Amino acid sequence: MSKDGLKIVTIGGGSSYTPELIEGYIKRKDLLPISEIVLVDIEAGRHKLDIVGEMAKRMVKAAGLDWTVTLTLDRKSALKDADFVTTQFRVGLLDARVKDERIPLSHGVLGQETNGAGGMFKAFRTIPVILDIIEDMKTQCPDAWLVNFTNPAGMVTEAAIKHGGWKKTVGLCNVPIGHRKMAAEKLDIPEEDLFFKFAGINHFHWHRVWDKQGQERTHEVIDAIYKPTDEDQESHLKNIHNASFHYEQIRALEMLPCGYHRYYYAEDEMLKHSIEEFEKGETRAQVVKKTEARLFELYKDPELDYKPEELSQRGGTHYSDAACEIIAAIQNDLRTEMVVSTENNGTVTDLPYDCAVEVSGVVTSHGFEPYNWGSFTPEARGVIQGMKGMEETVIRAAIDGDYNRALSAFIVNPLVPGGVVAKDILDQMLYAHKDHLPQFADKIREIEENQPDTINYVDELMKSN
Amino acid sequence: MSKDGLKIVTIGGGSSYTPELIEGYIKRKDLLPISEIVLVDIEAGRHKLDIVGEMAKRMVKAAGLDWTVTLTLDRKSALKDADFVTTQFRVGLLDARVKDERIPLSHGVLGQETNGAGGMFKAFRTIPVILDIIEDMKTQCPDAWLVNFTNPAGMVTEAAIKHGGWKKTVGLCNVPIGHRKMAAEKLDIPEEDLFFKFAGINHFHWHRVWDKQGQERTHEVIDAIYKPTDEDQESHLKNIHNASFHYEQIRALEMLPCGYHRYYYAEDEMLKHSIEEFEKGETRAQVVKKTEARLFELYKDPELDYKPEELSQRGGTHYSDAACEIIAAIQNDLRTEMVVSTENNGTVTDLPYDCAVEVSGVVTSHGFEPYNWGSFTPEARGVIQGMKGMEETVIRAAIDGDYNRALSAFIVNPLVPGGVVAKDILDQMLYAHKDHLPQFADKIREIEENQPDTINYVDELMKSN
Amino acid sequence: MSKDGLKIVTIGGGSSYTPELIEGYIKRKDLLPISEIVLVDIEAGRHKLDIVGEMAKRMVKAAGLDWTVTLTLDRKSALKDADFVTTQFRVGLLDARVKDERIPLSHGVLGQETNGAGGMFKAFRTIPVILDIIEDMKTQCPDAWLVNFTNPAGMVTEAAIKHGGWKKTVGLCNVPIGHRKMAAEKLDIPEEDLFFKFAGINHFHWHRVWDKQGQERTHEVIDAIYKPTDEDQESHLKNIHNASFHYEQIRALEMLPCGYHRYYYAEDEMLKHSIEEFEKGETRAQVVKKTEARLFELYKDPELDYKPEELSQRGGTHYSDAACEIIAAIQNDLRTEMVVSTENNGTVTDLPYDCAVEVSGVVTSHGFEPYNWGSFTPEARGVIQGMKGMEETVIRAAIDGDYNRALSAFIVNPLVPGGVVAKDILDQMLYAHKDHLPQFADKIREIEENQPDTINYVDELMKSN
Amino acid sequence: MSKDGLKIVTIGGGSSYTPELIEGYIKRKDLLPISEIVLVDIEAGRHKLDIVGEMAKRMVKAAGLDWTVTLTLDRKSALKDADFVTTQFRVGLLDARVKDERIPLSHGVLGQETNGAGGMFKAFRTIPVILDIIEDMKTQCPDAWLVNFTNPAGMVTEAAIKHGGWKKTVGLCNVPIGHRKMAAEKLDIPEEDLFFKFAGINHFHWHRVWDKQGQERTHEVIDAIYKPTDEDQESHLKNIHNASFHYEQIRALEMLPCGYHRYYYAEDEMLKHSIEEFEKGETRAQVVKKTEARLFELYKDPELDYKPEELSQRGGTHYSDAACEIIAAIQNDLRTEMVVSTENNGTVTDLPYDCAVEVSGVVTSHGFEPYNWGSFTPEARGVIQGMKGMEETVIRAAIDGDYNRALSAFIVNPLVPGGVVAKDILDQMLYAHKDHLPQFADKIREIEENQPDTINYVDELMKSN
Repeated sequence: MSKDGLKIVTIGGGSSYTPELIEGYIKRKDLLPISEIVLVDIEAGRHKLDIVGEMAKRMVKAAGLDWTVTLTLDRKSALKDADFVTTQFRVGLLDARVKDERIPLSHGVLGQETNGAGGMFKAFRTIPVILDIIEDMKTQCPDAWLVNFTNPAGMVTEAAIKHGGWKKTVGLCNVPIGHRKMAAEKLDIPEEDLFFKFAGINHFHWHRVWDKQGQERTHEVIDAIYKPTDEDQESHLKNIHNASFHYEQIRALEMLPCGYHRYYYAEDEMLKHSIEEFEKGETRAQVVKKTEARLFELYKDPELDYKPEELSQRGGTHYSDAACEIIAAIQNDLRTEMVVSTENNGTVTDLPYDCAVEVSGVVTSHGFEPYNWGSFTPEARGVIQGMKGMEETVIRAAIDGDYNRALSAFIVNPLVPGGVVAKDILDQMLYAHKDHLPQFADKIREIEENQPDTINYVDELMKSN
Repeated sequence: MSKDGLKIVTIGGGSSYTPELIEGYIKRKDLLPISEIVLVDIEAGRHKLDIVGEMAKRMVKAAGLDWTVTLTLDRKSALKDADFVTTQFRVGLLDARVKDERIPLSHGVLGQETNGAGGMFKAFRTIPVILDIIEDMKTQCPDAWLVNFTNPAGMVTEAAIKHGGWKKTVGLCNVPIGHRKMAAEKLDIPEEDLFFKFAGINHFHWHRVWDKQGQERTHEVIDAIYKPTDEDQESHLKNIHNASFHYEQIRALEMLPCGYHRYYYAEDEMLKHSIEEFEKGETRAQVVKKTEARLFELYKDPELDYKPEELSQRGGTHYSDAACEIIAAIQNDLRTEMVVSTENNGTVTDLPYDCAVEVSGVVTSHGFEPYNWGSFTPEARGVIQGMKGMEETVIRAAIDGDYNRALSAFIVNPLVPGGVVAKDILDQMLYAHKDHLPQFADKIREIEENQPDTINYVDELMKSN
Repeated sequence: MSKDGLKIVTIGGGSSYTPELIEGYIKRKDLLPISEIVLVDIEAGRHKLDIVGEMAKRMVKAAGLDWTVTLTLDRKSALKDADFVTTQFRVGLLDARVKDERIPLSHGVLGQETNGAGGMFKAFRTIPVILDIIEDMKTQCPDAWLVNFTNPAGMVTEAAIKHGGWKKTVGLCNVPIGHRKMAAEKLDIPEEDLFFKFAGINHFHWHRVWDKQGQERTHEVIDAIYKPTDEDQESHLKNIHNASFHYEQIRALEMLPCGYHRYYYAEDEMLKHSIEEFEKGETRAQVVKKTEARLFELYKDPELDYKPEELSQRGGTHYSDAACEIIAAIQNDLRTEMVVSTENNGTVTDLPYDCAVEVSGVVTSHGFEPYNWGSFTPEARGVIQGMKGMEETVIRAAIDGDYNRALSAFIVNPLVPGGVVAKDILDQMLYAHKDHLPQFADKIREIEENQPDTINYVDELMKSN
Repeated sequence: MSKDGLKIVTIGGGSSYTPELIEGYIKRKDLLPISEIVLVDIEAGRHKLDIVGEMAKRMVKAAGLDWTVTLTLDRKSALKDADFVTTQFRVGLLDARVKDERIPLSHGVLGQETNGAGGMFKAFRTIPVILDIIEDMKTQCPDAWLVNFTNPAGMVTEAAIKHGGWKKTVGLCNVPIGHRKMAAEKLDIPEEDLFFKFAGINHFHWHRVWDKQGQERTHEVIDAIYKPTDEDQESHLKNIHNASFHYEQIRALEMLPCGYHRYYYAEDEMLKHSIEEFEKGETRAQVVKKTEARLFELYKDPELDYKPEELSQRGGTHYSDAACEIIAAIQNDLRTEMVVSTENNGTVTDLPYDCAVEVSGVVTSHGFEPYNWGSFTPEARGVIQGMKGMEETVIRAAIDGDYNRALSAFIVNPLVPGGVVAKDILDQMLYAHKDHLPQFADKIREIEENQPDTINYVDELMKSN
């Protein structure tokens, strides 16, 4: 930290989440001796950056703080002497997410924006950029912390640590926060009186919970959430949207699942529901696009100098707050218990030593110290190892642009059925995202030259959005 | 071995495969100093045992051998002083396999008789019996070798070694034999001039091949089998029955897949084809039932004293021959190279130390010595770990009869989609196989009492076969 | 905890350390709702128990507390409904330790009361007793915590957890406490402003340290303690008693050693010094016996109702305080950072999953949550794996009484040279400790019958003490 | 292989062993289509090369073969298009070995030319040279096999594979050959009728043996070799030279040790005996120097065209024959069972994946296929892990010339007591070997400038040889 105070740089500063981030800093102003906040974006995001950036300035001013808020498109210069770099960018913006979801769904296959076909493509687009940012950081701010909450947060964090060599990386997600709150509520015990232990990988983790008397309460939470009531028995999961887990399976696990396990444990219902959304033109990306447009309309209001309530509907609530929390904890050696994507180093024995895992631990000034986890039972072990093998394949393909490897990843992904359809979707998505996949340029050119059906399919599908 | 000679006991001796087994012994008469062959079956198989047993006697006699061939329903007595026990029984006969296949397919889900829903139920039925046989062996023939080729051979072998504690178990399968022959043919090199290395688990393994000059030839075999020809390009996999692997994926693996990988790597085509078979009433079990009926008609012929050509259409060809080969190799310390399901002990680093793996190695008089394999690349590692996690869950459920665990296994099995359908199929199959699942008796009673829909569904479906 | 309050039972209650324990409870009276403290000892310790027990009662009274202090020789009854059981017993009392040290030293071999020949014999004597205590606990207080600080604390803790199956065991040692204090002093930073991470096994661990700014300060502490000053250079380690580590080696380790590493890293000086002590009749045990006699004289004073200063010279200072600290932390879910011997479960990747390790972590109401450590560099990895292999061999021999295994342990122990001398010492110690080694009774009888030299040697040696 | 035939290059061709090598090739002339044998040496070895090289030519001629035998000092050119490169060089010749042994022994510490202080220094001298040879091979003969039998064969092989990246390396040793012969003799069973399984690291491995009936015979061999006879009982290991293992310990291991285990398991006797040799001026190196001088006198005889009997007294008998055997097996895909130092890859689960191990397996045309071994019991596991940690530290120090690391290796080596003496020996040996340790040049200069005692000690000691 320079003598003037902390410099925090946010890549993807034009995001609609920025006000939550700014609010988080303001809430922690006593812990964070900030001198400058730099919001960085790219040319395509300039308009959003201007709107949200001005609002950020108003928020800081309203809080009576003298922090400088800088808006810039020059990433490299922005990184100069940064203490913390947070990443919340989205390569290709929400339009890319629309493609991530709608192309697979048009084949009756889940897009799933983090681990499914969509997530794999988000990784293909994002990983080269995060590695590029790290290259800049090596010269501009070699001691800075990288706080990543760009999805797929697990794979991006793994790429940053293992392939970028940036050890001072922490990956964040809001999912564990929600699960803590839910368990506390079900047990009717204040969250701070419970001890939580999470382990797994991003969007694919489980957790256990104990009370102050040292009793494990996991089973009670499982019962409170998943045990079918008489009413459920009758309706037999009629409401697919709330596709639930099988109580019996969760009892076998003896751990609480995370929300995203729904895509695996309740695959058929989730697929059915997603196809309905697809058919109505209301996939998550499409809904979010509208929400976001409304948000930016609000942000334009020169009187608005606080985070509007509507942002909490955006879906990623708590994300930015978690980022502020970890920054404050590192800066002040608070030893706060958090759930973070970090280098495994044997924390989860079943997964590769050098991969990223998402686990509970303590945030210190020198980094994240995970609690040891050990091994899973076979019920959980095999599937998470399967997911990690897929992730590693995706990360390698994202870096080397090897089409064969990308196809391998598609085939082994449990949300994509192996066979002809896997290759069709892969080829269509490569073409659809061609502007953001330089590593696959040769293959995309080959598709453009030889596969007119692929091109027509995508062009027709996107026209209809 | 007693001074009179070898005693070989075959559990499931009434199988249509028995003539191949007898032929295999006869072919190796110089290596096998047999005194008695005992064919054991249960009451329900008595008729088949009589027919095939008489034929076995004729074969031995025609070969001019003085071996005693004994037919019996008394398993325990039969095991007394056995040197080798081979297991080829099928709990519930082919009718059970019909259910294994048709119930899942009626929901549009692959039955897959070894690793899918069908395979899991075959494990539920078979594992308690194999453990029972081992209990008998502990007192009757504590030094005997157990040569298992009852499917699912990998899970049954793992149960025998890990849970039954019978270290002298080898599990056999004919799949690697076929792959060796195919590679030799494609390379136009005699099989014995090639070195093969297989690793994985039963029906889920890969292999590599080298020639006498020390060159790896795996890629050439991949190209010869999987590289699309111009003609393929046009037909674009029209013939679903021959659903092929994606050449690009196999190149990424840098190993040759086994035939059963089709169910995972070409899942959609395999499913489509299986549903067609289902609709025509021609699932594999239904076809095999007819083949078998024809075979037993042939076997009845009192003039027939050799293995009829028609048996090779039965599907399991080479199976029994592999059993005879391994018996001869153990008996004579031949150090024959084979592919065997055996205790892992670190051979495949990625899988649990105490599980069963199917790998290449050398058969000695003291057992199977596997060649070390080490680790897989991520493309293969994750999926096989996923399969093994499922297998371990199945094995534990087969032993403890825990319904929650059985449901867990169904949900994590990649051939069964998670969700409502998984539980529906599980419940229906529990009911359908109720006569052979004593460990699940309580749950089955519960289903019978509370789930009339389940019962009606199965009864209707089975009526239509 | 019963509604009356906590019941804490101390096995080996007649120890001279008991006043520190009582003082520790009194200091934490606001955190510990104690109803009863039970001090248990055996007949041979009755005299000491009476003295120190009366003093304990005076201390509690002087503090104005209404806690019941009970003295008893009936261990089983004492354990009834205990909440915490602490173990500080010494099988064979200090006389046994005299033998542990003097027999090896008479051969020019280090006795080393925790990991050397002496430590192995202390394990042989102690482990059967701790397993016996656990058997009682299973029926008397199945939910109690076992807080062990009987040496060799690592092996005793491993036996309790792995062989006794008592998961709620924590092993304590005062060594890490001293090292924390020393580092804080050298850096001139308050201990609570530093973050320490210890890993290894009892009396064989290393540590690293960071400051509040996130900087690792390990190297500075290494330099402050171990870098030779000009004066050192001249004296070239003249003072053998303070036998120091080679600065260069510690730099290669990049971790701080613990004091007991001296026996390995400065083996020759330690041995020379120990032989001098042996020759003067002043081995540690002999010195401690005198200290203890003086202490009990003090304790007899019916006016003394506080821990006398002289106890701190006893050597084990901070031990009992650590026990009180961990009891308070468990009772109140304090999440205190401590260094504890606990089940590995992959915390230290290089050591067996089911062994005991001594590592940093957080004490919660449901137990100890270790921070993950991962792997050591080769400089440290090999030796600690060697120590653990020796420990496991010792523990197994302590349980099964297998002489061959005991000899194996002696030969692989780095403080005992392999060969004739190893066996001579082993046999002599078996005979010398015969009253406390029921598991080796047959072998000891064999020695008594066939090895008169062994008996004479010991009898002569012990006469001279 | 070129169309003319095999080119085999031997580095250290002037060795007294070369006649055994040539004899080995001649014996296998039908399997080895040799065109050229190149014997390479350095200037200091030119005289020996000329003598032994001329004799090699006479041997080939006498066998009626047309192989070209080339003698050269130009290593790089010699390597051009080689098919096999064998390494049997000794950096610093036997004079270096004299120092390796005598300096430690002058302090009462075992020199032990392979794993002790001597072995560590032999590694320091040899590893940079082997890596240099590999650099040449990368351009001159990228497909050649490297057959190493330069000691310490395990560390040199590990360096070649892991640090040099030369996967086609096999390390050979004659020790397993002798143990096979001894077991066969003790059991009175032909060696080829036994199955041996060795595992461990070079000069630190164990083995088990089975007969053709599948019975393990390890215990019988243990009894035959190590069970004390009545006579032994009386003499109680009087003859220290034949320092024996403790029978009881070997029974606990349930494996046969190798001869070099004597230095660890019977450390005190071995040390006493070595000190006697030292005092008589008859350490192994000194004896061998005389043997070698006599051999070269014999080799000079222009009539001698066969390997003289005297060579078998040299100690390394069977070494060269093993090299010829493995070359023949690779060349002809013989699948011969051998014991080879090779990359671990999980063969021995307890040791690092990427280290070298010495294990049983099969030699194929594409390389060595080890039989899987798995884990050791604690009795053996800890010590071999300790040795490997030491070896890895030595290898790293040999490459990076880090003095701190070298000192670490000395301190953790079980044959060198930790403390002042470790550093004294290290410094003295660094000075003594200064001509062959360029990587330690800076440190050696520092010693020369600041440690006159070190220099005087070595100079005096070496004068007396």
